[in-house]
Amino acid sequence: MPSMRKPALMFAVVALPIALLAQTTPPQAAHNYVATRHSELTQQFEEFLSIPNVAADPANLRKNADFLVAQLKQRGAEARLLTDPALHGSVPPLVYGEIKNPGAKRTIVFYAHYDGQPVTPSEWETGKPFAPIVKQVDGEPRIYARGAGDDKAAIFAQLTALSALQAAHIPLKANIRFVWEGEEEAGSAHLEQILMANRDLVHGDVWLVCDGPVDQTRRQTLIFGARGDAHLQITVYGPNRSLHSGHYGNWAPNPAMMLVQLLAGMKDANGHVVIPHFYDGIAPLGAIEKKALAEAPVNDDLLRNELALGHTDGGNKHLLELLNEPSLNINGISSGQTGARSTNSIPPTATANLDLRLVVGIAPKTQQQRVIDYIRAQGYFITLAPPTRDELLTHAKVAYIQADEGEPASRTPIDLPIAADVIRAIESARGKVILLPTFGGTVPLDAMERAANTRTITVPIANHDDNQHAANENLRLQNLWDGIETMASLIAMP
Amino acid sequence: MPSMRKPALMFAVVALPIALLAQTTPPQAAHNYVATRHSELTQQFEEFLSIPNVAADPANLRKNADFLVAQLKQRGAEARLLTDPALHGSVPPLVYGEIKNPGAKRTIVFYAHYDGQPVTPSEWETGKPFAPIVKQVDGEPRIYARGAGDDKAAIFAQLTALSALQAAHIPLKANIRFVWEGEEEAGSAHLEQILMANRDLVHGDVWLVCDGPVDQTRRQTLIFGARGDAHLQITVYGPNRSLHSGHYGNWAPNPAMMLVQLLAGMKDANGHVVIPHFYDGIAPLGAIEKKALAEAPVNDDLLRNELALGHTDGGNKHLLELLNEPSLNINGISSGQTGARSTNSIPPTATANLDLRLVVGIAPKTQQQRVIDYIRAQGYFITLAPPTRDELLTHAKVAYIQADEGEPASRTPIDLPIAADVIRAIESARGKVILLPTFGGTVPLDAMERAANTRTITVPIANHDDNQHAANENLRLQNLWDGIETMASLIAMP
Repeated sequence: MPSMRKPALMFAVVALPIALLAQTTPPQAAHNYVATRHSELTQQFEEFLSIPNVAADPANLRKNADFLVAQLKQRGAEARLLTDPALHGSVPPLVYGEIKNPGAKRTIVFYAHYDGQPVTPSEWETGKPFAPIVKQVDGEPRIYARGAGDDKAAIFAQLTALSALQAAHIPLKANIRFVWEGEEEAGSAHLEQILMANRDLVHGDVWLVCDGPVDQTRRQTLIFGARGDAHLQITVYGPNRSLHSGHYGNWAPNPAMMLVQLLAGMKDANGHVVIPHFYDGIAPLGAIEKKALAEAPVNDDLLRNELALGHTDGGNKHLLELLNEPSLNINGISSGQTGARSTNSIPPTATANLDLRLVVGIAPKTQQQRVIDYIRAQGYFITLAPPTRDELLTHAKVAYIQADEGEPASRTPIDLPIAADVIRAIESARGKVILLPTFGGTVPLDAMERAANTRTITVPIANHDDNQHAANENLRLQNLWDGIETMASLIAMP
Repeated sequence: MPSMRKPALMFAVVALPIALLAQTTPPQAAHNYVATRHSELTQQFEEFLSIPNVAADPANLRKNADFLVAQLKQRGAEARLLTDPALHGSVPPLVYGEIKNPGAKRTIVFYAHYDGQPVTPSEWETGKPFAPIVKQVDGEPRIYARGAGDDKAAIFAQLTALSALQAAHIPLKANIRFVWEGEEEAGSAHLEQILMANRDLVHGDVWLVCDGPVDQTRRQTLIFGARGDAHLQITVYGPNRSLHSGHYGNWAPNPAMMLVQLLAGMKDANGHVVIPHFYDGIAPLGAIEKKALAEAPVNDDLLRNELALGHTDGGNKHLLELLNEPSLNINGISSGQTGARSTNSIPPTATANLDLRLVVGIAPKTQQQRVIDYIRAQGYFITLAPPTRDELLTHAKVAYIQADEGEPASRTPIDLPIAADVIRAIESARGKVILLPTFGGTVPLDAMERAANTRTITVPIANHDDNQHAANENLRLQNLWDGIETMASLIAMP
């Protein structure tokens, strides 16, 4: 974004006559700024998306961070990288920016993340997740690249909103802080540690967590909590080498068959998890959350049509209701080879990766243990390290389980006083917002609240159909333009 | 193998005194020839293994064929490529060789195949399936490369046996023919057609099908039939694009979960197939087959230990008994990504490749249809083409099935007159042989018998632990040296 103008005049605007300032509201300023710069802004966003941002490539992750520090400085913010010295530079740093306002009554922190999910280039239409392209979808332009929707859009919207406010000489009222993480898609393993090491810098009256997609109606959405997430990788064992399926089929146990039988028993035909105690402990929704849910749009038919789904799980419950329950999902399963590379073999192992979404009241370890107990109850010997030959020989069925730390769920009361101001600011930009008690995806809200001594409200801007976490991730450009208005209204709020 | 000597004197040996000829038996000639040439022969075999032989690489498959024609000619055989002109060169040709003997009372045909299973180089220890290396395993040398055991070993043993007989001036008695296929691992789709187009050339009193592994005791084995095989590729559908498992988990059906539930119901905990009628129609073994089975070594405990298996399927039945039953095996299953590349997604599809081994009495189409009927009975809409959007929207569960033509099972009576001569010849070389009614793997015996108007007996030489069809395929070199003696005894038989 080298062509972005320098904010030299930014802190001079307080000297302008009040009458002039009143002419333009923050969202109007953003709207005017964007309206004449679609192609320039698209080009700047492409530059940002061209820097690869996956955990497997730390050098490029660091390039993203350095790039963002420079962008913040160009806009007059104090900016630098934050880490915990105890980590010795081993994890991607936070990008930190601050714009102080001497008269401010409160501090608002904008969280987003600059890292993206792993990529499998061969699955992308272009084969190149970091060579952004713009394509028309249903007559509207979208930009395709890893990170386009999740979550570089939010960062770019905040930077551009700053530029727009500066261009319109609109003064900020609150202290504004930016905390952009580089390890979100890797489970935010060190976020809390880094925040704790920099508590005074990252504290705020509220953290606005700018991540995830808006409602399928494309209306601006505010979310007051998020599901947690915990993962399990399960590997089961057949013969210690691949065997000819003709010479040994019927006799050598097939680990793919073992695994499908193990996983199949975890859910009923409606997608309801039948692992004992799986739903125990769920903290019930309060009256205000239930009211918000009842007022939220029901987009299930629209989505079923869009996704070509002949049925959905969960019986008669709506998607938004189901997001308030824990879930069990097979992220991936593999054994042997499929398609043209399939061979007549009995594979030696079969592996599945599960994610367990959590709600308030169910801790990551608790839910992982319920699944592990279930696997043991199916006759499996459980090992937390690759099994030895002796373990394989002495147990009919062996499962090697790898569990991550997980992330607990979190919930902020919708009637928190500062929430009213946030809602008012956004509605001045975007009209009536949708309030939801629970974000289906996982954001480390719990860690943020503890470490930064704050509360969180989630402000997504991406389109729901952005192929987040998958190949061909994209952002509908109108979501970016709208998001810049949303961010301008929040950056300028009292 | 450029260093192999030219067989210039081959047809002159009839002039040598009978007394001299009687001094050396064919297996002795082979033994003497091999004993002084281990490293030379290993080098020649490596040269053959270096020519890639997978279906995806037709140019190199053809190189194998041309190479073999030259090798046959060097040994004085009439040799050429056989095909059906109607195929217009679109499939790998048969390599054909013939050594006529004017006084011969019968014609013996040696079948083997020069193509190999597909390779996934990253799974190989060397990363290079066509760069053969020799490694010591349990103090014995083995050669590693695709095709080492399956089935270039047999071809190389036949060529070397010819050289050995020639070197010892041992005359042949029967007419000898070689038919080496290039499409066996692709299901021998055109073998019958090419044989039918060349019926007179390929006919023989017996086809000796030189493929597969010997018994786990490493004793020479003769097999009088083979299981058939039929394949199904099953793909089931979730959303039409990968979805974030947080935002849609619980609601969007997960195709991996659908597939595991579908497959899990196909077998019980003992590996017994519970698809209705799966075992209907099996032709029972006769008294002579039962006797052979009863006399065959029971290697189950040895194998369980070797393969680190804590249990085996099939209840109390031995491996050799179970090979006389049909089987259902998952060759591969895949959906989303596992391991480090796993993402928090609901994948759009899940795919499994099944192979169904068949026995006499159950035709390929019959068995495939039983599985398809089962899938339909689980509520699936079956399509034989990729499903349309409309089909996906109007059916709760859709399965796209790809079925191959399959290969029927075959059985030759153990008491066939020519079988006695074959057994006698081999026992002169290798001592007491093991007779088995059914080869677990699949060889297109049925097509051979029909097209070449012959009967088949299978003469394997490879070690059972050769990683056939998998990564790190190998041949125990002692099996090659023994195999050369076996082949010499058969090539010189009356």
